Amino acid sequence: MPRTKLNVAMIGSGFIANVHSNAFRQVGHFFDVPYDVCCKVICGRDRAKLEKTASRWGWDELETDWQKVVTRSDIDAVDIAVPNALHAAIAIAAAEAGKIVLCEKPLASSLEEAERMTRAVQRIPNAVWFNYRRVPAVVLAKQLITEGRIGETFHYRALYLNQSGNNPSKGNTWRYKRSEAGMGAAGDLLSHSLDLALYLNGAVTELCAMMHTFAANRDVDDATMVMARFANGSIGTFEASRYGVGCQNRNAFEVNGSKGMLSFTLEEMNQLGFYDATEPGRLQGGRRVSVTELEHPYGKNFWKPGHVLGYEHPFIATFADFLNSIGGQEAFHTNFEDALKVQRLLHAVERSSASRGWVSVGERVAA
Amino acid sequence: MPRTKLNVAMIGSGFIANVHSNAFRQVGHFFDVPYDVCCKVICGRDRAKLEKTASRWGWDELETDWQKVVTRSDIDAVDIAVPNALHAAIAIAAAEAGKIVLCEKPLASSLEEAERMTRAVQRIPNAVWFNYRRVPAVVLAKQLITEGRIGETFHYRALYLNQSGNNPSKGNTWRYKRSEAGMGAAGDLLSHSLDLALYLNGAVTELCAMMHTFAANRDVDDATMVMARFANGSIGTFEASRYGVGCQNRNAFEVNGSKGMLSFTLEEMNQLGFYDATEPGRLQGGRRVSVTELEHPYGKNFWKPGHVLGYEHPFIATFADFLNSIGGQEAFHTNFEDALKVQRLLHAVERSSASRGWVSVGERVAA
Amino acid sequence: MPRTKLNVAMIGSGFIANVHSNAFRQVGHFFDVPYDVCCKVICGRDRAKLEKTASRWGWDELETDWQKVVTRSDIDAVDIAVPNALHAAIAIAAAEAGKIVLCEKPLASSLEEAERMTRAVQRIPNAVWFNYRRVPAVVLAKQLITEGRIGETFHYRALYLNQSGNNPSKGNTWRYKRSEAGMGAAGDLLSHSLDLALYLNGAVTELCAMMHTFAANRDVDDATMVMARFANGSIGTFEASRYGVGCQNRNAFEVNGSKGMLSFTLEEMNQLGFYDATEPGRLQGGRRVSVTELEHPYGKNFWKPGHVLGYEHPFIATFADFLNSIGGQEAFHTNFEDALKVQRLLHAVERSSASRGWVSVGERVAA
Amino acid sequence: MPRTKLNVAMIGSGFIANVHSNAFRQVGHFFDVPYDVCCKVICGRDRAKLEKTASRWGWDELETDWQKVVTRSDIDAVDIAVPNALHAAIAIAAAEAGKIVLCEKPLASSLEEAERMTRAVQRIPNAVWFNYRRVPAVVLAKQLITEGRIGETFHYRALYLNQSGNNPSKGNTWRYKRSEAGMGAAGDLLSHSLDLALYLNGAVTELCAMMHTFAANRDVDDATMVMARFANGSIGTFEASRYGVGCQNRNAFEVNGSKGMLSFTLEEMNQLGFYDATEPGRLQGGRRVSVTELEHPYGKNFWKPGHVLGYEHPFIATFADFLNSIGGQEAFHTNFEDALKVQRLLHAVERSSASRGWVSVGERVAA
Repeated sequence: MPRTKLNVAMIGSGFIANVHSNAFRQVGHFFDVPYDVCCKVICGRDRAKLEKTASRWGWDELETDWQKVVTRSDIDAVDIAVPNALHAAIAIAAAEAGKIVLCEKPLASSLEEAERMTRAVQRIPNAVWFNYRRVPAVVLAKQLITEGRIGETFHYRALYLNQSGNNPSKGNTWRYKRSEAGMGAAGDLLSHSLDLALYLNGAVTELCAMMHTFAANRDVDDATMVMARFANGSIGTFEASRYGVGCQNRNAFEVNGSKGMLSFTLEEMNQLGFYDATEPGRLQGGRRVSVTELEHPYGKNFWKPGHVLGYEHPFIATFADFLNSIGGQEAFHTNFEDALKVQRLLHAVERSSASRGWVSVGERVAA
Repeated sequence: MPRTKLNVAMIGSGFIANVHSNAFRQVGHFFDVPYDVCCKVICGRDRAKLEKTASRWGWDELETDWQKVVTRSDIDAVDIAVPNALHAAIAIAAAEAGKIVLCEKPLASSLEEAERMTRAVQRIPNAVWFNYRRVPAVVLAKQLITEGRIGETFHYRALYLNQSGNNPSKGNTWRYKRSEAGMGAAGDLLSHSLDLALYLNGAVTELCAMMHTFAANRDVDDATMVMARFANGSIGTFEASRYGVGCQNRNAFEVNGSKGMLSFTLEEMNQLGFYDATEPGRLQGGRRVSVTELEHPYGKNFWKPGHVLGYEHPFIATFADFLNSIGGQEAFHTNFEDALKVQRLLHAVERSSASRGWVSVGERVAA
Repeated sequence: MPRTKLNVAMIGSGFIANVHSNAFRQVGHFFDVPYDVCCKVICGRDRAKLEKTASRWGWDELETDWQKVVTRSDIDAVDIAVPNALHAAIAIAAAEAGKIVLCEKPLASSLEEAERMTRAVQRIPNAVWFNYRRVPAVVLAKQLITEGRIGETFHYRALYLNQSGNNPSKGNTWRYKRSEAGMGAAGDLLSHSLDLALYLNGAVTELCAMMHTFAANRDVDDATMVMARFANGSIGTFEASRYGVGCQNRNAFEVNGSKGMLSFTLEEMNQLGFYDATEPGRLQGGRRVSVTELEHPYGKNFWKPGHVLGYEHPFIATFADFLNSIGGQEAFHTNFEDALKVQRLLHAVERSSASRGWVSVGERVAA
Repeated sequence: MPRTKLNVAMIGSGFIANVHSNAFRQVGHFFDVPYDVCCKVICGRDRAKLEKTASRWGWDELETDWQKVVTRSDIDAVDIAVPNALHAAIAIAAAEAGKIVLCEKPLASSLEEAERMTRAVQRIPNAVWFNYRRVPAVVLAKQLITEGRIGETFHYRALYLNQSGNNPSKGNTWRYKRSEAGMGAAGDLLSHSLDLALYLNGAVTELCAMMHTFAANRDVDDATMVMARFANGSIGTFEASRYGVGCQNRNAFEVNGSKGMLSFTLEEMNQLGFYDATEPGRLQGGRRVSVTELEHPYGKNFWKPGHVLGYEHPFIATFADFLNSIGGQEAFHTNFEDALKVQRLLHAVERSSASRGWVSVGERVAA
């Protein structure tokens, strides 16, 4: 079948723009998708970085004004890979110009922005790069939960720890400023954990959180802790920190259910921990499933059994699934609507931390 | 040197009475202690169980009325291994009779009892069996923290998960009844985590907790979650549950500091995880120290390097350290005073859970 | 039931004599056995060490001449815990005096001695302390193999590595002298691996070995490597070394069979690794069974689920099983006959290493 | 700087041709290389597979006759990704046509072929895809050994186990036929282990091996075991098997040296195990270094600290290093000369297995 050309514009040229570029380049190598993805134009403010990223990944054109880019008639899709506070303006402008919109997580730097953005893309294919939903081991966890293999959920437990913030003198990038990032560890790290929790364990009804800043000179949280109640009756804890010295990228979760336990950590990205409590007691034990078999999620797309995937593969799978969803009946997830739910939780985290008590998650910000 | 005879009376004949009995039998085999410990009399209500425990461990006499036992002139020390709600009466009576008192944890079934007990033993050698303080790996963690090897503490994180409560129909023993246990997972499991936190990371100033009961027919918590602030500026999370399906006895903690990380889990009792963030980045990595070397805590008391210890050895070490402390200048820890601090935290947990918000730990119950 | 008194004499007062003493003291605390074990007399050449061991474990009498001991009419059992080259004389004398004989492994310092010893005890209850056969995880492995859970065996793979010999200047004890030990790493470490292989995988038909000495001043092997064929058609590798720097006590084995895999390492003594290849591919993974459940081997004898055992517990279980076997229909294993098979393999290892080729195991030394 | 165009021809269209194609596509995205790599022509016998691979990776032209391809004047480099027995003819023809030659491992199906091939490429840039030399953790191991961090080597120990051959009925591809593969597990798996051993521990002087076939209908080895002596005085063991049930892709090695230990397994590809025996005994422990830091090998080429690599990245690094070596002073490794050394070891393995004894490795096959 002939494939339609899809002209993509990238707004941003930093680390994550490189990761997205790789997904654009690699998607056709591993997945059957109905589009030929063309890396048409990349847009950024730092000229040297822009040229380097453009040259490395073969972007056809360079641009410095995103407003010009998002309205170009030859652009089909706009990918947003800039600091959080800039997401809303770009996404809304691109949506108004009728472009497909992809946005890096977290969706926005405030709930109000996120709500506006979500309304703006209502009739447009849209996606948010919550990449960890496409880790094969995470998808397998979802399958096992859906199949009832761990039964009724009792506990959900998530950590996202790195040591990026430990040196207070280094943290003067946008990620450490409220005006650009909105939040600190909460937006950066906790948002991933919350998205996975929503995916794997469903809605959170109420929560109690504490946001904490260790470094004197910062106005965003260095670490955030959360206790939560889920709609399914289970209870959960979350902890995200940039002061998790000893942890490079520990994005981990565990679920205890009536019939078993699941556990995952990004540090062993290709494995899922599974404890089957329905087996004879004599044989029960936590097993490590190497999620690289052909019958595993994305097992036929990448390499062979026992041939592990790296950080970038879930981005490729995210993009492939998104491309295949366009024009179809089934919505792609994580879309803006899903990411708005995460933003609502982040907002509740802020409210709870300020009020030093439990808050209900359901309340909407007045439109 | 000739050793003094120490006549011990045991109140209780269940699982933990067996563990204590083993400590009494073994202490002289591994430690130089100034006493010859005599297992004089064991006291219990269930005759069959009493006889079995007595015969197994060679207790000289059997008794069913603890009040007779604690006042016997030939008894030097009373060891309390009965349900929590019975601790106070026995401990106070024994103290009033001038006996050395050892008590199983948690100290009491209420803060009020714990305070009375602590006052009662003020002039008497006393100990509480918070056994995990004597796991060699835990002592090594304490040493490393004290030496400043992980620097300033940022995060303290503790779990104590087992699956004992998962079957609601089974839980009709005293541990699941408020009138006998006082609390559920909090008293049973969280108390251990809190004691270790006090030992390793110092005082907690305020906390926010949620106690949750999954089983319809129970009046104690099946699980308890806590967020905490420590006096040293660090923040912490705690989770204790009897619904931790997949975890047999996961008593674990982690500490992130400015210079490194420590981690421990009882499932690998003979190892301490240590990440030294002061090493060259290229060589940094979490190491597993097998805490069985001669230079390790209790390394000269038990076997050889690489020859692992089991569940009972920390009890033996606890008892040895206690015996050696009697009559000395330095207080033994964990004593009633220490265990009272744990009880105060448990009380704060209850208050916080009821009020759905943060509570200060310092407040005393009116005398 | 009233228990018969069993007067034991210990020949030896070093590390392993302490371990045996502990088994004598503890056996009645955990097992129902038909004997009251009395630590009657302990015999050694180093007076200070002898007194220390005797006092620590409560041996009634001290003796320095083993020949007097083994013929004493009030002694029922003789336990041999001295350097290998002394085993034969003591065991044979004790057997001739009609005593029950227990002997530390390896059985002897030569095959010829082992054969004489085995003949001597033919009508007498006898045991060799191959303690690792009673590690619960090892017994579980045996059960799973016997039940066919890993199918037909393809590979058996064993390591026993420690770092005891790394410092050549330190190694001047009997363990490093051919005249006292017979062999080095082979007798000390490999013998354990071979005994477990015979237990778990059956007879070895032929082997090819290389014994190697790193230290210039030694006449025993520092390390020994073996390739082997088993009677069941599987093939195996063995490696034992005192130069295994980084390994404190790594006694490990793995078995690959047509239906699964088993793995064990003494460093995680309470766990058995099990990979069930009959499960759906999607769920296959190596699991770690914590072998502490009530339904596990010795699970009802020691503590509770999740409450781990240490180095000494398999010795206690060994002694309990031996006591219960006396006078019964079923032979106790590992007995002298079994240990002779290990000695035959060790002898084959020496022959193969000398001849630099494969040797058949079956050949007997001429009587 | 302008980059020279490099027209590549691929001979082969199976799994490994896909992996190489990925390296060709990705090399410029992660590395500065002096060439623009053009995927010019791909050649294969199975038309359907050829078309699929060509279309997936964007090869410009398809061809079915390799002889036409290797002499085309517009081709600069020939990459060989076909069954082992076809390597020699293609490599020699390509070399004679003056092409750069890259060849999948093992170099050949016999030592005689390997020697002819090596002579043929003597004046031509050449490479063999022993990809595991470019795993960052393996390169770090090499650096640490070179720096003397583990001191003098005592033991080298390697495993390469998968379960690909367990089902005898499935194994009718070229990999199970002597005429096409030359060897079985030895060529397929052991060759990798031997290459890493040569890289990390230097030359092997003599070895003793056993090749074994479990499946009745095969004429290549299903498993091969080796004992070896290295020129540096250390001794080693190797085991490779397609009957390693429970192991998907366990390519592992360990090195014990006088100052420490290194360990690696492909199942945790992003980590290196390091035990530093020069630290105070109290702090010694095996550490897991996550080899993803900027200062690690290839750390600046791929993602960020804690963002793991997958199976394909070492291929990309191999190709990048090769491209950068062309025309330079320093030889690229692993080249044909290096791969010939592996082949010489494989030949010694065959000789030893046939003669059931030790063989010297040095002997050359008569020219």
